[in-house]
Amino acid sequence: MTSERFAPLPPPPYYAVIFTNQLADPAPGYEAMADKIFDLAQKQPGYLGAETTRDGTGLGITVSYWADEASIKAWKSVSDHMIAQKYGIERWYARYTLRVAKVERAYDGPEGRAV
Amino acid sequence: MTSERFAPLPPPPYYAVIFTNQLADPAPGYEAMADKIFDLAQKQPGYLGAETTRDGTGLGITVSYWADEASIKAWKSVSDHMIAQKYGIERWYARYTLRVAKVERAYDGPEGRAV
Repeated sequence: MTSERFAPLPPPPYYAVIFTNQLADPAPGYEAMADKIFDLAQKQPGYLGAETTRDGTGLGITVSYWADEASIKAWKSVSDHMIAQKYGIERWYARYTLRVAKVERAYDGPEGRAV
Repeated sequence: MTSERFAPLPPPPYYAVIFTNQLADPAPGYEAMADKIFDLAQKQPGYLGAETTRDGTGLGITVSYWADEASIKAWKSVSDHMIAQKYGIERWYARYTLRVAKVERAYDGPEGRAV
């Protein structure tokens, strides 16, 4: 998704969108869609960064970080539109949950790197 | 970690601890420690659930969910003590970030399952 696996973020507060998802098997077109969505997110006002990983069973967690709630809502309308137009989310995800959270504190380790 | 990969959670608000981490290679004793920490977390007052995954490069994201900030702080003192006594976090993690966030909204899909 990106060579920087840890998102370089400003000090809190900021917002996190926690997206836990189970990839369908097969999930045709998923990789191409994910790349496009990621490219688009990076251009979005208020986008701060993202962290993502997925295990061999297809369980993925992606956390994207945003300056404020308004930027999350704007991104939702853009991404919903794109997904509705070009793809169908049911094709890729057997299940997902999406949580919007306000990050209040952040720590780095094990050597106390700056956030 | 658990057979239930999606945490069954109450409606928001609640708190999330987002732990993004790069496992060291090798990470001797990591699996045993992770199992113990997870068993202990589940017994902790205010623990609601957790979701976790890790890819083949060792990048993991674990999100644990808690009723309130007080339960996170209590858990931190328990887990810090255990880690300091029995292990050393530097052995397992090349890098990590830990973020504490208040979950304000949650959605399920693709079929609108209840959270």
